[in-house]
Amino acid sequence: MELEQNILHHNQLLAERNRGYFAAKNMLAVNLVSSPGSGKTSVLERTLRDMKERADFYVIEGDQQTFNDADRIDAVGVPVVQVNTGQGCHLESDMVQTALQKLKPRDNSLLFIENVGNLVCPAMFDLGENKRVVIISTTEGDDKPIKYPDMFHSAQLCLINKIDLLPYVNFDVDKAKAYARRVNPDIEFLEVSATVGTGLEAWYDWLLTEQQKLA
Amino acid sequence: MELEQNILHHNQLLAERNRGYFAAKNMLAVNLVSSPGSGKTSVLERTLRDMKERADFYVIEGDQQTFNDADRIDAVGVPVVQVNTGQGCHLESDMVQTALQKLKPRDNSLLFIENVGNLVCPAMFDLGENKRVVIISTTEGDDKPIKYPDMFHSAQLCLINKIDLLPYVNFDVDKAKAYARRVNPDIEFLEVSATVGTGLEAWYDWLLTEQQKLA
Repeated sequence: MELEQNILHHNQLLAERNRGYFAAKNMLAVNLVSSPGSGKTSVLERTLRDMKERADFYVIEGDQQTFNDADRIDAVGVPVVQVNTGQGCHLESDMVQTALQKLKPRDNSLLFIENVGNLVCPAMFDLGENKRVVIISTTEGDDKPIKYPDMFHSAQLCLINKIDLLPYVNFDVDKAKAYARRVNPDIEFLEVSATVGTGLEAWYDWLLTEQQKLA
Repeated sequence: MELEQNILHHNQLLAERNRGYFAAKNMLAVNLVSSPGSGKTSVLERTLRDMKERADFYVIEGDQQTFNDADRIDAVGVPVVQVNTGQGCHLESDMVQTALQKLKPRDNSLLFIENVGNLVCPAMFDLGENKRVVIISTTEGDDKPIKYPDMFHSAQLCLINKIDLLPYVNFDVDKAKAYARRVNPDIEFLEVSATVGTGLEAWYDWLLTEQQKLA
């Protein structure tokens, strides 16, 4: 499809512009992707609450509709811009650029871009981020990495969330990891629970370490 | 977008052809939609196992990749065709039509079309189905209907699945229903658990009643 190619090419150009912007400000930009209800916003809320004294954070919230997620982040006291995509199933680089103009982030800060809840479309759209983090939850089934391979192929880290619900569900952590490695041998994993707090220190260390690697 | 309009128009024409096919054979075609991991395949597997002596069933399985779901249905002994969409985020009417030519379904039968796990894209693509059934699970959060309104607006029935996990999660059933009714006042609800079996008889009754209404 010619037009699809053009949209992807246009997105890629602006992704590079975003990448330059992040480099100039020595910012770590993390693109958070998952299916709806995996806990992106809950992970983010908890992370910001626990970490906001240790670094400067900014958030771009993507959703089809509603300002619910932005309201939740705003309540934590972190600068946030909501982007509503309407019928769109993913964020694009120009939306990130417009949001950055509103946020005016400080140097050496961390930016979370919470994408639209979708394991398909956001995989194809580079936003210029430094790291792509895919969240799966133990309630979704361990086969997701091979059923939605593009997303797991394009991510550097996989957070396995809702690890506290393991006793109640049929989810094999080792199998999920093996499936993800089949499409992406280099992918890293962290097992967490945003509600109970399990494993979050390792996630926070990962974020700060990746930020420090930039300098 | 001109091309997007053309794709939607082309899809709509073939959706009407599918609708004619279903009417001619007095078939009930159900389009099952949800986010990844809500339990579409588990609901389907259990439904077919419990119901296959009571009616003729056929299944079209949509996925980005893998034949896992089709293998699960095949193991139950129901005719199934797998459609892999590759980078596509939804099924389209022509895929259903091609699958129907392979399935050659009997008159008065029931067809399940399990769409790609995605709460955004499949909402825009009519497949000519009689009924669209959206599944949400109690582990996803009760705000999904207002965050992904197009899908809930276009469905006639909402199955609230994993109802057995309610004690372990933060999910308000009444709030979820109220949110869904805000975008679709006529939507019906059934609370089920595909693993434990709760509420399935009401779902089976709903299916048989809808099939009988056709005649």
